[in-house]
Amino acid sequence: MTARLGDPDFLLPERRERIDRAVAGRTRTLTVVLEAFCDPQNVNAVLRTCEAFGVQEVHVVEGPMKPYDRNKKISQNADKWLDVVRWKGTGECLAALRARGFALYATHLGEGSRPLGELPFGGEVALVFGNERRGVSDEARALADACYAIPMRGFVQSLNVSVAVAVSVSHAVERRERERGRHGDLDEADAAALKERFYALAVRQRARIAKAERLDARALTGRAARRARQG
Amino acid sequence: MTARLGDPDFLLPERRERIDRAVAGRTRTLTVVLEAFCDPQNVNAVLRTCEAFGVQEVHVVEGPMKPYDRNKKISQNADKWLDVVRWKGTGECLAALRARGFALYATHLGEGSRPLGELPFGGEVALVFGNERRGVSDEARALADACYAIPMRGFVQSLNVSVAVAVSVSHAVERRERERGRHGDLDEADAAALKERFYALAVRQRARIAKAERLDARALTGRAARRARQG
Repeated sequence: MTARLGDPDFLLPERRERIDRAVAGRTRTLTVVLEAFCDPQNVNAVLRTCEAFGVQEVHVVEGPMKPYDRNKKISQNADKWLDVVRWKGTGECLAALRARGFALYATHLGEGSRPLGELPFGGEVALVFGNERRGVSDEARALADACYAIPMRGFVQSLNVSVAVAVSVSHAVERRERERGRHGDLDEADAAALKERFYALAVRQRARIAKAERLDARALTGRAARRARQG
Repeated sequence: MTARLGDPDFLLPERRERIDRAVAGRTRTLTVVLEAFCDPQNVNAVLRTCEAFGVQEVHVVEGPMKPYDRNKKISQNADKWLDVVRWKGTGECLAALRARGFALYATHLGEGSRPLGELPFGGEVALVFGNERRGVSDEARALADACYAIPMRGFVQSLNVSVAVAVSVSHAVERRERERGRHGDLDEADAAALKERFYALAVRQRARIAKAERLDARALTGRAARRARQG
């Protein structure tokens, strides 16, 4: 086989299968909006969770920490496989999602707030999470179709925001699978384009690994040569 | 009213109601085991999650970070309202839980590992989480009734451990409510004892707040007096 670097044939069949499986599990009809997060650790943890649950699009409204610092250890490079959409303000982000047919559910504990389990997940849903300290903005609450809370049964007042996202997203995925029969639902063209993109990313990743291995081997040879000269 | 400090009558009725409601939502038939965690942040985040979901007992097997540092900001003082049981080793912890009738489910991705959604939650269940880097120990896997994994649909290999606990516990609580009709299930004597303990904790908390307010008031009066002398 004479596959060139950058050629999808360069990928092992198992890697291609893994990509195809991931794309089959991807959705754009469930999404997450992060409003003005302060802690880049939280953004990275959320991206990792979304990637693991097949949520392809994550919307990040700029906050004090703009733009978020990538943290490989926490995100496990999750953002590489996602569409992270950045917005200047909550208003334009939520208006764009509403125009695409999304129901907007904002996490907020207060008058008229519903328990997570009572929300409908039959259609397109955007879950909106607010700043770690201040919670969702008044603007987000005003624009939301519903406010919801994860039922808190004890004395602590709130969950860590990355925990709240994980509980909400995993609940949404379970509900979607039970009620719609599936979670992953990209259309054919979108899935094909995403596969191409992921193949290319995986090829570049493999090329980087191969290069690192060659450099490693050269360093080893160099050390062996020096040792031979000294010996 | 002449309630003394330390007297439950010192508590506002809303505070007592809140405690009674929390105790009604508590369980000892679902529990979490943390095996040799390294990062105290993760232990604190897990305690906060367990408290929020009514899981009264958390078992901590000592690891490199023994004992875990309390971090109020992350735990929100959750451990104050919990029974955190410390163990020297995994073997004795899991044997004690098994003797109490618990089914032991260890989080581990590998041969024979089942998806979280396929586990039965009809009986007493202990969810066992391993060290952040090494995962659950061979000992825990050998002693477990089942190994399970949260289905990962993308490219990242694992979830942050506090996210994994949150997804597992919230799933277990939902399943228990659906299949057993309820999650909180302390017997009458246990519930009564826990209420007394929580009343006493809340009274001490209120006494601390009252003292702080008195000191504050005194400081203000002092400042006012100084200002009067200077004025």
